[in-house]
Order: sequence, then C-alpha cells, then structure tokens
Amino acid sequence: MDVTAPAHRLSAAVSAASRLLPARTALRLRADAAGLTVAGRDPDLTVRFDCPATTHTDGEVAVPAAPLAETLKMLGAEPVRVVVEGSRLALRLDQARFALPVLPSVVESPASELPQVSEVDGHVFASALRIVAGTAAKDDPLPLFTGVRVQAGDGELTLTASDRYRMAVARLPLRSPGALDVLVPAALLTEAARQARGVVGLHSGPGRFGLSWAGGLVGTAVLDAGFLSEEAIPSGAVDTIVTLDADALAAAVRRVGVYAEDRRVLTLEVGDTQVRLASARQDTGEAEETLKADVSGGRTSPSFQARYLLDALGAFTGERVVLSIQPGMRACVLRAAETGEVALTYYLMPMLAR
Amino acid sequence: MDVTAPAHRLSAAVSAASRLLPARTALRLRADAAGLTVAGRDPDLTVRFDCPATTHTDGEVAVPAAPLAETLKMLGAEPVRVVVEGSRLALRLDQARFALPVLPSVVESPASELPQVSEVDGHVFASALRIVAGTAAKDDPLPLFTGVRVQAGDGELTLTASDRYRMAVARLPLRSPGALDVLVPAALLTEAARQARGVVGLHSGPGRFGLSWAGGLVGTAVLDAGFLSEEAIPSGAVDTIVTLDADALAAAVRRVGVYAEDRRVLTLEVGDTQVRLASARQDTGEAEETLKADVSGGRTSPSFQARYLLDALGAFTGERVVLSIQPGMRACVLRAAETGEVALTYYLMPMLAR
Repeated sequence: MDVTAPAHRLSAAVSAASRLLPARTALRLRADAAGLTVAGRDPDLTVRFDCPATTHTDGEVAVPAAPLAETLKMLGAEPVRVVVEGSRLALRLDQARFALPVLPSVVESPASELPQVSEVDGHVFASALRIVAGTAAKDDPLPLFTGVRVQAGDGELTLTASDRYRMAVARLPLRSPGALDVLVPAALLTEAARQARGVVGLHSGPGRFGLSWAGGLVGTAVLDAGFLSEEAIPSGAVDTIVTLDADALAAAVRRVGVYAEDRRVLTLEVGDTQVRLASARQDTGEAEETLKADVSGGRTSPSFQARYLLDALGAFTGERVVLSIQPGMRACVLRAAETGEVALTYYLMPMLAR
Repeated sequence: MDVTAPAHRLSAAVSAASRLLPARTALRLRADAAGLTVAGRDPDLTVRFDCPATTHTDGEVAVPAAPLAETLKMLGAEPVRVVVEGSRLALRLDQARFALPVLPSVVESPASELPQVSEVDGHVFASALRIVAGTAAKDDPLPLFTGVRVQAGDGELTLTASDRYRMAVARLPLRSPGALDVLVPAALLTEAARQARGVVGLHSGPGRFGLSWAGGLVGTAVLDAGFLSEEAIPSGAVDTIVTLDADALAAAVRRVGVYAEDRRVLTLEVGDTQVRLASARQDTGEAEETLKADVSGGRTSPSFQARYLLDALGAFTGERVVLSIQPGMRACVLRAAETGEVALTYYLMPMLAR
C-alpha cells in the first residue's frame, strides 16, 4: 500500500472510527483507485469512513488505532504519505517519519451490506436524537432502558427512549417511505448521528441496524429487549395547563435549587397568572421566585427533581413550553407551544413533595 | 445594612474573594458611603474586594460564601438589593428573593495595613508569574519548593521558583524603587495576580506580603523556608548552543513523544544545522523528526523528560529560544533569542538517556 492523503482529512476519518469502536480495536486502511478507506469492526459493530487520497499502490493493512489517531491529530493540513515498509506502516512527511507496526491480518468475511429502508435529514435527526437519547439510562440492568426505539412508518420517523423517570418521543419527517421498528443502543446511536452529514440513510437487516451518509457507514447489532411505548403512559387526567418561557423557568430552577434540600425537589406552585418556586434549607437560607405564565385549570402543583426538570426544559431551549399536568403520580407532559420540524413530547414523572 | 449594587459586579467581587479563601470561610459585606466591600480572612490570609453600590443604610454582616457566590453567578447585570431582614441577609430582585443566614459576628481586630514597598505593571507581573509559579511544586514536604521568591531591588523585580527538576527566574521592571525579599506560597500568589488589574502595589511587613490594586487587596503570611538561588546552579560548562523556534520544537516533542517508552525521555540529537528527535516503542512503533536550528559547539546531545521540556518551551511560545547545553547532569539554560519586557531564564535538568 502506498497512498498520499491530506493529514487533517485522514485524521477526521481515523478519529471518527476510533470513537465509535471499543478501545484497542485495530483499524484497517485500504487504498484503491477510489481513495483511502478506514474501517473497523467487532462482533456487534461495523464502521467505515472514506478519505480522499491519491493511491500510488493499492493495498490493505491493519494497524493499532490509538497511536495512528494521536499522531494524525497533531499534524496540520499537509499531505502525508502512508506507505507499507516491511513490517511497518510509515507516515512520511518532509522532515518526519512515524512508523506503526502492521498487525497480523485476519481474513474477514466481507460485512453484508444492510439494505436501505428510508432516509432522513441528518441535522434534524441528530438534534432530535440528542434530546431523546438523553432520557435513556446510561447504565441499567434492563437493556430496554439503554436503547432508543427507532420506528419508521407513515412517512414519519419516531424516536423513543426512557429511563423510567422520564420519556421523550420525537417525530420527524422521512424523506422516502419505509418501515422499521428496532431498539438501538443509545450511546452508539448518538455518536454515529453526531458524525453523520447531509442526507442519512436508515438501514435494517436481521438483528442489525445501520446509518449511512456520503463517506461514512455505521452498522450495529440491535437490542433484543422488547419495546418502549408512549401508549403505556396514562395521559387522560390533565387538569392544569401552564405555558411559559422554557429558559426563564430553567434559570429560576437553577437559582432556587441552590437553596433546596439534598433531594433537590422543587414544587411548581401554580397560580392564576404565575408560577412560583420556593425552597428553604437550614444552612444556606431560603429562596423564592415568581414567573409570569398562561395558566388554565390550575388545580395541581407538581413537584420535580430539579435536575430532571432542567433536562426536560433543555429540550425546549429558546421556546415557550406547554406543561400538561395531571394530579397524583402521573406524568407531566411537555410540548413546545409551536411545533417545528421535530414534534417532541417529553414525559416527566413528578416526585412526592414533603 | 441596605444597599443596591449591579449583580454582576457584586458577583465578581464575591467570586474573587471565595476563590482566594479556603472553602467555608465566611465573607463579610460592609456598606458605607464609599460603596460595598467584600472581605474575608483566615489566620494566614486577608482579602478585600470593592464593588460600586448605592448605600441606603450603612452596615456590616457576615454570611456563608458558597450560596452567595452561586446565586450571584446566576443573575444577570440587573441591580440587586442587599438588605438585612432580621436574621437573614436578603438579595431582592423584581420577582425573586434569596435569603442567607446572617452568621454570628466575631469582633475582629482590624487588619494592619501593610506598607507599600513598590509597584509593577499588573499584566507583565501576572504573565511572568504564571511561568515562574509553574515550576514550583504543587505539593512538596519542603515548603521551599512550593513558594515563589519575590525580590525587589535595583529597579527590578525578580521572581524565582523551582521544584528541583527545573527553575525559572523572571526579571521585570519596578515602577518605583523599593527593596523586598520574601518567599510567597505559589498557588495563592498566582490566583491573586490573576485577579489584579492595572498598576499593582507590592506590600511587605513582618512575616507578611501583600498585593493591592484599584478595588482589591490580598495579604498573606510568607513562607519561612530559606531562599531559592539561581547562583547555586552551575552554568559555566556550556559547550553547545542551539537556537530554534520554540513552538516547532514543542510540536515535534509532542508527536515523537507518542512513540516514547513509558519514561517519556527524549534525546535532542544535536547536528550541524539541525536537531533530531527519535523514539521507538514495541507496541506503537517508532518516530523521528528533524528540525532546522542554529547550532554552535554541538558536542552535547541532552535528554529530557518530554513533559518538562514542553513546560519549558511553553514559556517561550511564539519566540525563538536559545538552549545553552552543558555536558553531564548539569542544567540546560533556556532564554528567548530576543528579550522583551520580562527577562526569563529557565533551567531544566537533563535526564539520563538509556
């Protein structure tokens, strides 16, 4: 293998692949007339990123990912020559040479290409996913709560996740008709969506799910853990609707939260034209803040864990948010007052006030 | 006490005082015709920061620092009314009230004002100090190595610090004649200099040292631990002088360092018109880089711990640096090729190459 590529482009491809793969997974570099490809796989995951390059001699080689990524990150935009020299893969620049050990090559069965089911706008998909995946548990004995349910159908993509205490459901338009219903690991899906650019293809095959875009491809095993469903959440007992500025409420929650007891539970005291937050604590003192709001009903004043409420409000930054409140231990439903391209529904479980 | 102040200005004064004082030290707020003063002290330290304010009723009160700092940080630039209400100090805004417990007031003997010895330009002082204090040990059984020696005399301020492995000495002009020779805790001095603005007064009294500037004052007990001296470092055996770009050498050290063994010792192989760095490591591979340099002598090729060499080169960012190299285990002396307002001398101990 002998190929010349811009160092910063190769660095981007190598970094993207390393971030998605488990630590210490080797990377495979392949050069041919089409350019340079960086790929890696483990039993659950397949990733591939393309890099523009001038190939002098075709070839394929496996090298350790960490020193390759670290070295490329510290080079500028100059062209780097990537060439096999005996048992080494050398990166050559004018005044420098870095040489990585070539790893023993395992003959791999080519990854079967997953058929494409539909397409979405990558930017809209990534921003919806960021919010929905934020409500999945980072770590949970039940894999159900560590995944994002990805459903395509009726011209719409629906993303759903929950950690039991809150659930987010986002709906966004599909660019072409297609059907799909899988549970995908949330952390991996978020990182993959962060890399994706432009139009993103959704792929599906037996037990697998994939994303593709110009220059990149990620395929993963799906979780076999049942499905989360919005319909399971009771939402018929709404007796109070409050509409107010999400950022103003978040700022007040942060300030008044300083004075909250260790459980950090705050009550949204719903008035006729306002919402009041109050807290008190032996050593730090007490705080109260009042916010103007449109209120209808006004019979229930729910209490929330401050950080969960802040997470929820963060999904509506820059918007007016409508809180549909139910009495008792039933979820509060948050929606934007004016829906954009993504229709987001956020369910937040109340806490017992003391 | 009843006073109105811009929240962001009060926040700046309270944050500056809290950062300098040990955690859980109470802050004293004092309002009078001159405005609002935030002060705090412990046996070793006195700090005071002024804040512009309109005083309605004079007074003085002690409150816990943490909730006060945290609340103010989350307010904007709006005016906040700070008023004693019974056993509370209330912060009042249009739609909000935050109330802190007033702490029992201890009658304090007024801190004796330290006489001013001389003055320096605050910006030059802070930038010289940042580099010099960076060579002091963070934690060392010998307090000598955790301090910065501050010497005034002959129209010059000299700052010296060392952790045994390197020593930095910076000389900068005094704005007025004065004499001083103290060892000041490095971490505190760095934080105080970071706060200082404009012309900075240097103060000294029995066992104490202080800095003052418009709106602020910090006084501290000095270390009684002897003095660091540049003269103790042998520097008469220089046989090799290398001049090159500090940033280019630092970048090469970072890249080649990826391939260095765990001790991360790199040898600067001095040639006729160049310097070569090389390293090799079983699992990651090998690297070499060559840099153009002006060389005279060229008989000694010293080895350094990569991170210490990077620290030293960081003090000469954007400059050409002159390395005066001595054979054996004698310090390498780094100076800028062209001296600016601060004359910096950086001594770096070599390591044994293998």
